[in-house]
Amino acid sequence: MTRFSHEVYARRLAAAADGARGAGLAGLIITPGYDLRYLIGSRAQTFERLTALVIPASGAPVVVLPRLELAALKEAAVGELGLTVCDWVDGEDPYRLVAEALGGGSAPFAVTDSMPALHLLPLAERLGAAPVLATRVLAVLRMVKDASEIEALRTAGAAIDRVHTAVPGFLRPGRTEAEVAADITEAIVAEGHSEAAFVIVGSGPHGADPHHECSDRVLEPGDIVVVDIGGPVEPGYNSDCTRTYSLGEPSAEIAGQYAVLQRAQAAAVASVRPGVTAEQVDAAARDVLAEAGLAGYFVHRTGHGIGLSVHEEPYIVAGNATPLTEGMAFSVEPGIYLPGQWGARIEDIVIVSAEGALPVNNRPHDLTVVPL
Amino acid sequence: MTRFSHEVYARRLAAAADGARGAGLAGLIITPGYDLRYLIGSRAQTFERLTALVIPASGAPVVVLPRLELAALKEAAVGELGLTVCDWVDGEDPYRLVAEALGGGSAPFAVTDSMPALHLLPLAERLGAAPVLATRVLAVLRMVKDASEIEALRTAGAAIDRVHTAVPGFLRPGRTEAEVAADITEAIVAEGHSEAAFVIVGSGPHGADPHHECSDRVLEPGDIVVVDIGGPVEPGYNSDCTRTYSLGEPSAEIAGQYAVLQRAQAAAVASVRPGVTAEQVDAAARDVLAEAGLAGYFVHRTGHGIGLSVHEEPYIVAGNATPLTEGMAFSVEPGIYLPGQWGARIEDIVIVSAEGALPVNNRPHDLTVVPL
Repeated sequence: MTRFSHEVYARRLAAAADGARGAGLAGLIITPGYDLRYLIGSRAQTFERLTALVIPASGAPVVVLPRLELAALKEAAVGELGLTVCDWVDGEDPYRLVAEALGGGSAPFAVTDSMPALHLLPLAERLGAAPVLATRVLAVLRMVKDASEIEALRTAGAAIDRVHTAVPGFLRPGRTEAEVAADITEAIVAEGHSEAAFVIVGSGPHGADPHHECSDRVLEPGDIVVVDIGGPVEPGYNSDCTRTYSLGEPSAEIAGQYAVLQRAQAAAVASVRPGVTAEQVDAAARDVLAEAGLAGYFVHRTGHGIGLSVHEEPYIVAGNATPLTEGMAFSVEPGIYLPGQWGARIEDIVIVSAEGALPVNNRPHDLTVVPL
Repeated sequence: MTRFSHEVYARRLAAAADGARGAGLAGLIITPGYDLRYLIGSRAQTFERLTALVIPASGAPVVVLPRLELAALKEAAVGELGLTVCDWVDGEDPYRLVAEALGGGSAPFAVTDSMPALHLLPLAERLGAAPVLATRVLAVLRMVKDASEIEALRTAGAAIDRVHTAVPGFLRPGRTEAEVAADITEAIVAEGHSEAAFVIVGSGPHGADPHHECSDRVLEPGDIVVVDIGGPVEPGYNSDCTRTYSLGEPSAEIAGQYAVLQRAQAAAVASVRPGVTAEQVDAAARDVLAEAGLAGYFVHRTGHGIGLSVHEEPYIVAGNATPLTEGMAFSVEPGIYLPGQWGARIEDIVIVSAEGALPVNNRPHDLTVVPL
């Protein structure tokens, strides 16, 4: 299944138009990216030639696209939805087509957050109105997952859990991070992902760089190894899960600091319930680390929403007062990073329910000791 | 070699600042993408966390980036260039750092064409000035390749020519387009590309869709097959070359129409010289097809610039009055597409010299007959 049934997209399009009306917008203009995939199931990837879904606040949505991309629409729900398609050829002005589809008026229009300046600036000029981010309308929709999306996230979560089950077998002193990453990449696909979107194997001092990917560093006895992995499972919902491994028994100091991190992650998960704000979840993790004097080693936000995109709203970060609601899905992934020494991170994807956080990842949270 | 020496980037940064001054801009703001790679050799790929190179019209360039992406700067020329780096952590306001780096004033600022709305709109608000496309400054620089860039394009062109030499061996009736594409993908990497960026195998009616990629269609005797392939060769310059193959002898009608296409491609290449406009090259191909009544089957522009990006300025298209200058590199790739029947395209990358077009691809342009 590469997309949901067209009824799902019909509901989403109607909700998006409602949102645009409610926000006093002329409509939404969505170029290729996750919003487009969310709204009509299209994975179109054009850049310099404009492809855009136009959702006027009132009236029917229209797809504007280059004639030579028409075939790429087949996978989308455009036909079943009965959307009007306006194609254009090189040398014509596609912005005029968008303006016509949006209708007149000087109300602000909203654009997808990934719309490149290449298209945004000419559109703003053509429409003579102010652009705003469609996120204000769409994030509200995309943040809250419906039952089929939650099912898709659970499927992806179970798949990446199976990969983590296999990870200790890949981690042997003498192998390089890149060799381990190659095994993990293969396992990610074998367990049902369409691809490995990211494979972080951060061993020893590399674990102290949260965004290290992998290198030719050779694993050594005593290494602490951060393994942060994930990717999409059809129809495109992502897994993302981090566990930390120890090659042999860790020192008492490391074990102690890791135990604090584990409490921090658990505290953040325990804080999740409808009505709590995103920044409160961030603070819940940070406070536990602060009490132990480790907050200075936690150099990133606590989490990010996840769905069709690996990183999306809601961001679990200081300053985000968005209240959590049932159906939101995001990572809870505090980490500690001791520059030049070692790092650790524990990450689960959780879904907000009336009862609190439901994790889609279910591997143990301990520092997993790989016997030497 | 993953990038050029830092002197190359120092020259480019100075030229970009000169261009900004000359255009009356406050400066350029460059988020990750080809412009960033062109200017400092960085392949950073952040999205929701702002990474930006700020080039004020007067003053020193500054890199603004998330602290946890600092390691990603190592590959870039930032250190050797002695650029100031301003890092920020989640919860801080990176747009303030950009505003400070750009300096005060209400002059318009320019942004890279790939900057997402997510960053462009808050930046415009913070700076209280009008954004324009940095393309007006940077395209002038990026379009005209220097000697090392031309050498890189030649290396890539020779590599893809070697792949095309092997293509007839992959094309056998009974195989699927996808099987052929897998062989080609392997050959593209084996011949020195870092990856296969695109592999189009359009057989029979699929050849009539210019952007068809590949499918499970089984090749049949008599098929005309469009093979359009390419990818980057370190330090990142791309190949892009199309040849069309016939499985067995083509019909007289197909051979006749192909011969017109071949003349059209040759006419466009022959029209290339400094001072001729991009649209004149497009017209040169189109006119030959029109004379034979085939212009209606040529549904796209004649070409696109190429370099770090597969598609960049100058676009060889009606309406583009940019005069060609020495050092420009672009594709010349007219095609004919008979819906539901077959298609053909001939594509070479050429470089503009005082003597006219110098092709970097050198395989024969005939409809290559694969014996059955």
